[in-house]
Amino acid sequence: MIDSPDVLAIDIGGTKMAAALIAADGRIERRSQVVTAPVAADAGDELWATLAALLDEVVGDTVPGGIGVGCGGPMNWAHGDVSPLNIPAWRDYPLRRRVEERFPGTTVRLHNDAIAMAVGEHWQGAGRGSRGFLGLVVSTGVGGGLVVDGKVIAGQSGNAGHIGHVVVDPNGPDCACGGRGCLEAIARGPAVVDWAVQNGWQPRSGDSDGRSLLAAATAGHEIALAAFARAGHALGVALASAAHLLELDTVAVGGGLANAGETLLGPARVAFATHTKMPFAARCEIVPAVLGGDAGLVGAAAFIHHSEQYWPGGAD
Amino acid sequence: MIDSPDVLAIDIGGTKMAAALIAADGRIERRSQVVTAPVAADAGDELWATLAALLDEVVGDTVPGGIGVGCGGPMNWAHGDVSPLNIPAWRDYPLRRRVEERFPGTTVRLHNDAIAMAVGEHWQGAGRGSRGFLGLVVSTGVGGGLVVDGKVIAGQSGNAGHIGHVVVDPNGPDCACGGRGCLEAIARGPAVVDWAVQNGWQPRSGDSDGRSLLAAATAGHEIALAAFARAGHALGVALASAAHLLELDTVAVGGGLANAGETLLGPARVAFATHTKMPFAARCEIVPAVLGGDAGLVGAAAFIHHSEQYWPGGAD
Repeated sequence: MIDSPDVLAIDIGGTKMAAALIAADGRIERRSQVVTAPVAADAGDELWATLAALLDEVVGDTVPGGIGVGCGGPMNWAHGDVSPLNIPAWRDYPLRRRVEERFPGTTVRLHNDAIAMAVGEHWQGAGRGSRGFLGLVVSTGVGGGLVVDGKVIAGQSGNAGHIGHVVVDPNGPDCACGGRGCLEAIARGPAVVDWAVQNGWQPRSGDSDGRSLLAAATAGHEIALAAFARAGHALGVALASAAHLLELDTVAVGGGLANAGETLLGPARVAFATHTKMPFAARCEIVPAVLGGDAGLVGAAAFIHHSEQYWPGGAD
Repeated sequence: MIDSPDVLAIDIGGTKMAAALIAADGRIERRSQVVTAPVAADAGDELWATLAALLDEVVGDTVPGGIGVGCGGPMNWAHGDVSPLNIPAWRDYPLRRRVEERFPGTTVRLHNDAIAMAVGEHWQGAGRGSRGFLGLVVSTGVGGGLVVDGKVIAGQSGNAGHIGHVVVDPNGPDCACGGRGCLEAIARGPAVVDWAVQNGWQPRSGDSDGRSLLAAATAGHEIALAAFARAGHALGVALASAAHLLELDTVAVGGGLANAGETLLGPARVAFATHTKMPFAARCEIVPAVLGGDAGLVGAAAFIHHSEQYWPGGAD
């Protein structure tokens, strides 16, 4: 076994689990992933065995200098237990302890995947050098993470950055969170597709999903374009509120729906400009995230490589 | 002259200028204030002479251990120049340099009064022990400051905390900032009074100001109550957004309009509860600020006494 300065980064989502060795300069040295195969609700250790095999493959004969993990929420990050919404087999699953047992003596840091994504984009992606940064993911849900005044903001229980539940229309649609008029209720992928269907869009292929809606929008379909414009408008309003509150200078938008590019971001910028006129907020730029599926891995590595900035609670 | 561990705190607003000697435990040892007498637009030094006399009176024969200043914005706090909206005689006025010249060798720290107020309430008032705190002032304008994860959040140019320009209704009234549907456009004192007058309220005395509107509400006048309820609703919506984004646990509301107490805060709590259902946000409490007119002085002292937490940029 060879001691390595590289960090083992782990990114766990409902569809895939990825791991990588990441150097101090952010380079991905080695990377692998597996599908998050569904297992029985009581077979959490089976899923862990799959992940453990992936980790062994990635580290090879090296001992990593530390381990960072980003995982879907909810979680109790201070305890290291996870209950990812899309992984029913893990409920209060002691993921951090499992990893620590596998790599004795190595520091393991676990946090929400939205925070890992934002940290990754700030360290190596679209947020580099930003003094007021929000990284967000528009996908099945809408999540985000904040790096402001040079530090990640996590909140006491790690829930800061929940841009998806900023209120964009107090009389808007009900949200799955129980609230009303949240950004997520309007801009999450399934809500965008639902709105298009309710307003008369019929997918050619029969698949009414975000991908086919985007194809329709790209082909100039009016209702499809309006669906993305509505989501973009909601996004712009939420970002205007966030920019005023936190003096954001950069917002990076990733996730499946961000593949719509300007179809989504164009209307977002228009709404943002309507609602931010004071220079300190108006100067904020809304840009696409650039690290794609690697953002969570890169951010998880930063929990170790740059803990003074990126690990909630600070330096070692 | 006697060296003192006390801090000289200064709070400068459009109506009064206050100064105090404040001990390390937050006690106000000595306090004085003068009216901010209007002077000609080119007589900035005249106003300074009035302030300097006040400072001399407060320090007496002691040399303070440091000086903290909270002042109305806008300002360039890094340069120490101020241009308070309500003090036309000071435009890019080198206030920090003037204070430094008066007290050579003493550290002087100057920041926005909204941040000083929030810091004061966090250190010694309604926000004590909070891990996610917003202190806000509802008055002629609506401003605020943030202390999250144990640190004040100021933003690169010191403009973080602008809760007044969180969007509470994208189709709402135009705001003086140039935006639309901002909290401030609905909840600032003059807007609350205007709405009441437009909806048929006629003050008995002839003075249509916040004080007489509050008297009417206290007497049970329906339109007056509705005016405060509308402002409170807007406040609750804005706070719901902020609570999700920053995992706030405590919001302290001060300023002239906060004298309405439950007439304003009751409707704010109802709207907040409608829009925050996830436990991490719903647990946030909306309470009255407790330090009143002293919050800014106490916070300015904390810029020196507890710079590691309360001075943007950190410890000495």
